[in-house]
Amino acid sequence: MPNKHFNPDGLDYRLFTPGPVQVPDWVLEEMGKPNDTHRSLAYREMHAAIRENMQKILHTQNDILLFANSGTGILEACVRNLLADDETGLFFSCGAFGDRWIQIAELNGKKFEAVKVEWGKGITPELVQEKLAEKKYPVVFITFNETSTGVLNPLDKIGPIVRDSGAILCVDCVSGMGGTLLKVDEWGIDIALASVQKCFGIPPGLAFCSISERALEKAKTVKNRGFYLDFLKIHKKGLQNEHPITPCIPQIRSLKKVSEKIVEITPEKFAEEHFERTELIRNWAKENGFEIFSEEGYHSQTVVTIKNNLNIDVAKFVDELFERGYKIVNGYGSMKGQNFRMAPMGWITLDETKKMLEAASEALKVAK
Amino acid sequence: MPNKHFNPDGLDYRLFTPGPVQVPDWVLEEMGKPNDTHRSLAYREMHAAIRENMQKILHTQNDILLFANSGTGILEACVRNLLADDETGLFFSCGAFGDRWIQIAELNGKKFEAVKVEWGKGITPELVQEKLAEKKYPVVFITFNETSTGVLNPLDKIGPIVRDSGAILCVDCVSGMGGTLLKVDEWGIDIALASVQKCFGIPPGLAFCSISERALEKAKTVKNRGFYLDFLKIHKKGLQNEHPITPCIPQIRSLKKVSEKIVEITPEKFAEEHFERTELIRNWAKENGFEIFSEEGYHSQTVVTIKNNLNIDVAKFVDELFERGYKIVNGYGSMKGQNFRMAPMGWITLDETKKMLEAASEALKVAK
Repeated sequence: MPNKHFNPDGLDYRLFTPGPVQVPDWVLEEMGKPNDTHRSLAYREMHAAIRENMQKILHTQNDILLFANSGTGILEACVRNLLADDETGLFFSCGAFGDRWIQIAELNGKKFEAVKVEWGKGITPELVQEKLAEKKYPVVFITFNETSTGVLNPLDKIGPIVRDSGAILCVDCVSGMGGTLLKVDEWGIDIALASVQKCFGIPPGLAFCSISERALEKAKTVKNRGFYLDFLKIHKKGLQNEHPITPCIPQIRSLKKVSEKIVEITPEKFAEEHFERTELIRNWAKENGFEIFSEEGYHSQTVVTIKNNLNIDVAKFVDELFERGYKIVNGYGSMKGQNFRMAPMGWITLDETKKMLEAASEALKVAK
Repeated sequence: MPNKHFNPDGLDYRLFTPGPVQVPDWVLEEMGKPNDTHRSLAYREMHAAIRENMQKILHTQNDILLFANSGTGILEACVRNLLADDETGLFFSCGAFGDRWIQIAELNGKKFEAVKVEWGKGITPELVQEKLAEKKYPVVFITFNETSTGVLNPLDKIGPIVRDSGAILCVDCVSGMGGTLLKVDEWGIDIALASVQKCFGIPPGLAFCSISERALEKAKTVKNRGFYLDFLKIHKKGLQNEHPITPCIPQIRSLKKVSEKIVEITPEKFAEEHFERTELIRNWAKENGFEIFSEEGYHSQTVVTIKNNLNIDVAKFVDELFERGYKIVNGYGSMKGQNFRMAPMGWITLDETKKMLEAASEALKVAK
């Protein structure tokens, strides 16, 4: 089965997918460099630089933990490290990845209470306030940017509410971090986790999180945390800029470079540029008669989910745009055909986004 | 703190370390190529090729599962997927990584019985026979090639004994697979797991295992397997040549290339070449008055652990050899100074090994 757009030496199309995303050449260069071992000065220097840069990017004094797994692994780590067997975690979900976190809790034998809002809607501070007023919860789990629906939840307002309740707050920032400004300390986020294959524009394999002192303290009281995803093991070794196991060195080298660059650009400007690109896409959608799937006021700044209110053939539209050199994706899971997603994450420029949208206008004529 | 042997664009020394190892340029090229997403034909083709090639390399009909984590993650997966809470696993250990597996069982709240032999000694078929005659165990855990001591255990003899007992057999082949011939089906190995940063000569981040039907059947009966390391989830998605989460695509692309090459060379010849290189190192050691730390008959074919019976300054020797362009490592953990290790794993040639040993002879003069 040949794929005319795939040649073994590279891609001749650009990804506007919600992860993995287009990787710029200067990151690919980092990926292709030779490695020393993970017990070397060269490694420790990279690890140290990431911890320092990510603290700046996240506006936090909390330590940064690196994980040799995807973001889903840290979703599992949060559940295993922070919820004791007799405790009930409170999970807010507004889409597929919020639901995944609940499933992870269940599959790890943890007790949970799930609050789900309709897909496309955001999680309001009022809803969080209401749930936390009913009962005391030890840990709250929530998604920052829901990749499946293109919804961004207002963590600036939700964070302080959870902090005031005394609960530990874990936030899945996988597809939001970097592309959306995060003020971890000001907002009271105990765990802010992400993967590198979204707004950081690095090939997948590495994930990381910021972790508060009180989350580390809590972990000490939880049994059966396991070995691989144990916050305390990773933190202890991390203080020496090392990792308990052999981590994915090329992705770590890339994150060092990328985090340096974001600090240089400033996290504010890097996020602002993501906003400009998604705003351009939203405007294109509206000009073409589409509605935005995510609720007004809750639009993601990294992935735009466009409602198929025009009843176009989405699969054909995606194919036609691919033929023109741009890859976007259909709706998530059961939402296939009902919406489609365009994600100008990472190092894609505004100019490239304009070109993609020009091609999308052409593709639309054929798919209508 | 400058490291005169590290320059940001590459290494000017060669690794003879027991993982991560020297990565050849043609693998680095694979690491640096652009990625499509993990939900693409390009990805599925790579995944499918690896499953097929690894079956040939391992001489097995069992399916191959890919994991977006290090080999330690699969050690944890074995414990979580195959040991029910009321069952007791039998663990054989002859070094640090055997001990790690026991620790993993303990930290996951599993019951275990540990049989430990003196470091440097191998696990004999007689010992295994004896333990299995005493009592029936549901699962047996053992290390193939113990990286910390340079011991290779005779799985060709141990495997059939475990199979006859009815137990499921999990084998940590991290530092042995590829460099040592493995006949998974003939020897009766249910899980044979490895990482890519050892004999495959790929940067770290990816691990994989072969898995038997009966191991998959057993997993179905075990509760709280979690999400990230669930054999059944990974197997189910793997049958479609996909992965439940976003895996480390560059390492997967590299493993496709490397596994193709090993099949082409033949697994027999690839392993034989590892043996020749370690044999050269053992002969060098003996000619220089050293003893081999591993017991006669149990020498690893991928990493040589050399006993410091000459009482040299090991740290100085390692440094002096590094100054000459070759990186080897001191003894593992508490064995520092008591032995040192040279590992000509992966794509290092016999000629390079000779050159390294010439430099080692020079370094030895200074460190004696």
